[in-house]
Amino acid sequence: MITLDEKFRALEAENAPGQEVRQDLRDVKVIMLGEKLDGAVVDFSHGDVDAFPPTPGSDVAWKDDFGKGAKQAYTEYRGAAEIRNSLADRLSKFIGTSISAEKELIIAPGTQGALFLALGVTVTVGTKVAVVAPDYFANRKLVVFLGGEVVPIPLYYKDSQSEKGIDLHLLENAFESGTNVFVFSTPNNPTGLVYSRAVITKIAALASNYNVTLIVDELYSRMLYSGEDYTHLCSLNVLPENLITIIGPSKTESLSGFRLGVAFGTTKLIDRMERLQAIVSLRAAGYNQAVLNTWFQEPLGWLENRICEHETIRDEILKVFRAANLETACPQAGSYLFPQLPPLKVDLITFVGLLRYQANVIVTPGTEFDPACIDSIRLNFSQDHDAAVAAAKRIVKMVEIYSK
Amino acid sequence: MITLDEKFRALEAENAPGQEVRQDLRDVKVIMLGEKLDGAVVDFSHGDVDAFPPTPGSDVAWKDDFGKGAKQAYTEYRGAAEIRNSLADRLSKFIGTSISAEKELIIAPGTQGALFLALGVTVTVGTKVAVVAPDYFANRKLVVFLGGEVVPIPLYYKDSQSEKGIDLHLLENAFESGTNVFVFSTPNNPTGLVYSRAVITKIAALASNYNVTLIVDELYSRMLYSGEDYTHLCSLNVLPENLITIIGPSKTESLSGFRLGVAFGTTKLIDRMERLQAIVSLRAAGYNQAVLNTWFQEPLGWLENRICEHETIRDEILKVFRAANLETACPQAGSYLFPQLPPLKVDLITFVGLLRYQANVIVTPGTEFDPACIDSIRLNFSQDHDAAVAAAKRIVKMVEIYSK
Repeated sequence: MITLDEKFRALEAENAPGQEVRQDLRDVKVIMLGEKLDGAVVDFSHGDVDAFPPTPGSDVAWKDDFGKGAKQAYTEYRGAAEIRNSLADRLSKFIGTSISAEKELIIAPGTQGALFLALGVTVTVGTKVAVVAPDYFANRKLVVFLGGEVVPIPLYYKDSQSEKGIDLHLLENAFESGTNVFVFSTPNNPTGLVYSRAVITKIAALASNYNVTLIVDELYSRMLYSGEDYTHLCSLNVLPENLITIIGPSKTESLSGFRLGVAFGTTKLIDRMERLQAIVSLRAAGYNQAVLNTWFQEPLGWLENRICEHETIRDEILKVFRAANLETACPQAGSYLFPQLPPLKVDLITFVGLLRYQANVIVTPGTEFDPACIDSIRLNFSQDHDAAVAAAKRIVKMVEIYSK
Repeated sequence: MITLDEKFRALEAENAPGQEVRQDLRDVKVIMLGEKLDGAVVDFSHGDVDAFPPTPGSDVAWKDDFGKGAKQAYTEYRGAAEIRNSLADRLSKFIGTSISAEKELIIAPGTQGALFLALGVTVTVGTKVAVVAPDYFANRKLVVFLGGEVVPIPLYYKDSQSEKGIDLHLLENAFESGTNVFVFSTPNNPTGLVYSRAVITKIAALASNYNVTLIVDELYSRMLYSGEDYTHLCSLNVLPENLITIIGPSKTESLSGFRLGVAFGTTKLIDRMERLQAIVSLRAAGYNQAVLNTWFQEPLGWLENRICEHETIRDEILKVFRAANLETACPQAGSYLFPQLPPLKVDLITFVGLLRYQANVIVTPGTEFDPACIDSIRLNFSQDHDAAVAAAKRIVKMVEIYSK
């Protein structure tokens, strides 16, 4: 049995995105090579909501609901019925399925909150959980916290790899040998890879065959770049009995400051997720829930424009990295880039510290997403265009300085 | 090992406060005796923030922070440093101790969120946790969720009981036989009992002796009625090595709609709580954190007035219940009453359903706080004065109708 000491060592969060301010940079000052590189700080650890502001009207929606008083301060744990009702309609249209607002949907404090609830009701001591490597850092860590066993499923995402996606044979092997739950994000965080329709269909069929619970994180599915297709697993015909899809307005819509996420799927699991929410956070902040009323009904052209602006930044940074021979897959959706670095004179964590201290660039080490990714860094390029491109050039410069 | 099915049966939330709208009332319609009782709906399951509105300026504080943009949308997981700094000063003054904003304090999504974090980092499979009966419903349920073992410690709170408070001999026995953690609320929820200085001092000494982790929920400690004294355990001289105190602005200040809570204490535990927050909800909603800037610096006289208004309601409802021979302890703090009902023709859950259907009164069954409390109901009397007193009279009338 894992002890609390072991558990919380495994949950170390010093290098998690957004926590950089707590790191001690004294060590890197001593080993720095050359001079500091000029340039405004760019924090690629998360999107910049000043560059891409929250959905128009989100603050007005909040204020209206605050004005409603008691009714909105204390909602059902799964969220205010009125808000769930209209949201379920719009989500159903987007996904291409039919979601019952009453039985199949829960509002959580953030998409991460929804992910925690989904794993919290399906994973206990000894549960085998297939986790993609690399994938969102909380997937792996939540399984450890809950006492489950991580079964890693490698993701092929590099341009040098002939076939993209997860290894379906390994996945079937895992399902055959007692894996109970499979959790994954598509678009994948940190690589931006979108699982193809063929792969999604096969995952659903396998889960149905082996009675595996699926938890599908679609957080970035709205920000789909030109020429790309997206398949919502829950819209297929053959589905497993236990399926939860999660999504939220924190990314494309820049509403992260409100901590709102949504999960929908199997009634029994949603019921349990509400029971769990009843003891860990009660509900998503009451007044904030109202901001969901702006979601999936943004002003005409707003989404297209936002995608287009991100695509421009994506392409320019890709050009910078590829010109410097940093192997970087082109994200099909979302706002993450995951370049691979050449062998360096310092380890990854030190290099990330140097990037921050010497080059005013904050990135997240690949090891947050897969302990084996000791040569990659993740950038959220939802940033001011010019600042981001300049910072990408500084990353290239730093790689030159510290290359072996 | 407890299975997921067993675990979530134990976490049943149908009768949890605020969830009444999800209950099916068809059954009680059939067995109802007599006519419906007239009167406006009073929802005693939680406070009415229309009757006692949020702290003045809370919405303005929110709007100011929303205007700060990125800086406030993504804070450290433990909360924005600036907000923690000034809050730690004011909290230290209130508590009579010194709290390091940098190392000893974390902002969580609600006081319940803080409680979850505190138990989440101290309880794992097999951990023995002493839990007071009755006490806040989530204490017991969180221990079950985390795989721990509940060691119940009875609370003597009735006027008919000669000595008030927990049984310290039983507590010491529990500590002697391997209890690792003790969690309790003072003022107690649901009874309003404030642990005396002697009891608090003894608890701290015992925990120090037996190396037991203490988690002290002081959520209601600001709403202290005239003539009462309150001892903050963490301000004593002899303390255990591991101690977390939790408090929040959801009750006295009516800020529940913002989901804000605070935990402070042992650095190592606060660090771990942040690691856990990093994977379950990231942080308290960014913009909402600003509302903490209004806390412990309300307008002059605001707190005294709020306490005074609650004391009036407390005394009037007590008079109504006691005149009808419903044994009800006088709460020393907080806004809960926990009257005991005489033997009824129906079980407690049915009676609570009848109260809602027939009398327009929503209360929480005592079994939420202690499975053995099958003859008590909890009322949050932070309500409109006249409506609350009228509803209390309807409860008395309903008890008459259904008495054996």
